[in-house]
Amino acid sequence: MKLATYKDGSRDGQLLVVSRDLLTAHFATGIATRLQQVLDDWNFLSPQLEDLYQTLNQGKARHAFAFEPRQCMAPLPRAFQWADGSAFPNHIDLLSRARGGEAPLDFMVDPRIYQGGSDDLLGACDDAVFADAAWGIDFEAELAVVTGDVAIGTGADAALDSVRLLLLANDWSLRHLVPGELAKGFGFLQSKPATAFAPVAVTPDELGAAWRGGRVQLPVDVAWNGQPVAHIDAGAEMALHFGQLIAHIARTRRLRAGSIVGSGTVSQRDAAAGYGCIAEKRAHEILDGGSAATEYMAFGDRLRIEVKGLDGGSVFGAIDQRVAALADAG
Amino acid sequence: MKLATYKDGSRDGQLLVVSRDLLTAHFATGIATRLQQVLDDWNFLSPQLEDLYQTLNQGKARHAFAFEPRQCMAPLPRAFQWADGSAFPNHIDLLSRARGGEAPLDFMVDPRIYQGGSDDLLGACDDAVFADAAWGIDFEAELAVVTGDVAIGTGADAALDSVRLLLLANDWSLRHLVPGELAKGFGFLQSKPATAFAPVAVTPDELGAAWRGGRVQLPVDVAWNGQPVAHIDAGAEMALHFGQLIAHIARTRRLRAGSIVGSGTVSQRDAAAGYGCIAEKRAHEILDGGSAATEYMAFGDRLRIEVKGLDGGSVFGAIDQRVAALADAG
Repeated sequence: MKLATYKDGSRDGQLLVVSRDLLTAHFATGIATRLQQVLDDWNFLSPQLEDLYQTLNQGKARHAFAFEPRQCMAPLPRAFQWADGSAFPNHIDLLSRARGGEAPLDFMVDPRIYQGGSDDLLGACDDAVFADAAWGIDFEAELAVVTGDVAIGTGADAALDSVRLLLLANDWSLRHLVPGELAKGFGFLQSKPATAFAPVAVTPDELGAAWRGGRVQLPVDVAWNGQPVAHIDAGAEMALHFGQLIAHIARTRRLRAGSIVGSGTVSQRDAAAGYGCIAEKRAHEILDGGSAATEYMAFGDRLRIEVKGLDGGSVFGAIDQRVAALADAG
Repeated sequence: MKLATYKDGSRDGQLLVVSRDLLTAHFATGIATRLQQVLDDWNFLSPQLEDLYQTLNQGKARHAFAFEPRQCMAPLPRAFQWADGSAFPNHIDLLSRARGGEAPLDFMVDPRIYQGGSDDLLGACDDAVFADAAWGIDFEAELAVVTGDVAIGTGADAALDSVRLLLLANDWSLRHLVPGELAKGFGFLQSKPATAFAPVAVTPDELGAAWRGGRVQLPVDVAWNGQPVAHIDAGAEMALHFGQLIAHIARTRRLRAGSIVGSGTVSQRDAAAGYGCIAEKRAHEILDGGSAATEYMAFGDRLRIEVKGLDGGSVFGAIDQRVAALADAG
């Protein structure tokens, strides 16, 4: 099942069921108006949405309309939790060494996860607005899951059963603000402004065999100003699966329904796969004995992220954003 | 105006207006059912709640009932943001030095604020449930504000105008998990389980002259197993006021209505004022040339936090929690 949230002037938007091919949609009116509502009462509401989804896919939904990704908010325009892991050793290794440090050896037993802001999540085609391009504007292509309720002490395998939906994310990062925040130890705050999400949230069964081992076993394509810069397998080198990330959070506290847990930047050792964030490209340049030649993003730049399924179709729809100056924003 | 949220079996509870003396309450039925709803539409809904509050205080509300703090969830049982600062130099100084480090000199220009989990906030009398007492269970007595919408780049003075409500909090901390998370730089995750809040959220005007300079200029009383351990002025040594904390977050991103921003542990240099967390008491013991003699909390311990107003009445009602073992929890 594929779900999206349309802009309607409200803070939480209007829940839609979207057809598998992303061509048509149908309001979930009569079932639920907001996605959080569905997550709060998943077992009762999701089968009703599934029925509508089947009808829509069969072309029999009575009030279907053409799906317009530009009308989408984030599937959860605001969430009660957004915790983002760092599950790709290559990403950790590259960035640690480029900063002159060493990759931590314990990240498998002691995962890196930061608590992100979740009060303001961006739609797939919303402008990413920043006050200052000198902050080092960078994208991060990521997968994420939305959980149901998770009890304290839930193990990694059981935690996987709590996964309700999968998301594709762009975790905007302000690189020049990162070192100071890392040094303080209190985590990322100013360096992690609002995260953007692809138009459509999908249930894991939509991926078929590509949802395996708690990972999305599909390539993530990234284009920067129209130039392809990444075709990275999101599963191959994800050392910690989503159940392990969730279990790490749940060690001392519950997670409540609607919590979003991210994978961190998708990354592969093979440089030919490209880069899921500019910081990795720059790390390669630095570690190759030079200085960072690739600049971070400029106002007006565009960034596109998409995942194609085993059938070749777009799974989540595309994130397609423009970097905009605050001074020019409405 | 004083507002609270009653347990009704739902995730967000039922909104109440509570009388100034905390003796009576009235459901906000017909105005709003949830506090977040009021924050989303403050200018329209809050005057209606104010009217009900006046009627209730005059003893003329038609369906008033006795207010029972034990029935309270957190005023916001789940929130879209909980960002907690560290605005008391004495707290930073003591804990830094006891860890063998030095107090950072730049915390006034570069505040310490961590993003906390906000999907699961505890009611004032809820048990604080932990799996392992060896984690170093500690309380942290804090003040907090709930904001309206705040635009990117809002300055400290303007940010103060966004304050809608004041809260009293107990930011439960697992001290033995803190050093590892500080070292990773990704912020507190496992070391900061669910935070608890006093029964009642109040508008700043409830404090009269004690809401001054963006600070709550009142003492915070803490009792541990019935023994008073703190009578700490929450304003005197709060180096950064709430507007400054909010402005720090807003430098690179918006805050949306219902964001909770905390002061960090209230603290005073004068040791006679006591301690707002056990870690401070232990820091004194270590810095006085000994070892930490005071143990962290044990299962079955009780913790009470309260703030009395200029008129001597309880402002927020009391946080009164029991530390419980997960194995014994329902």
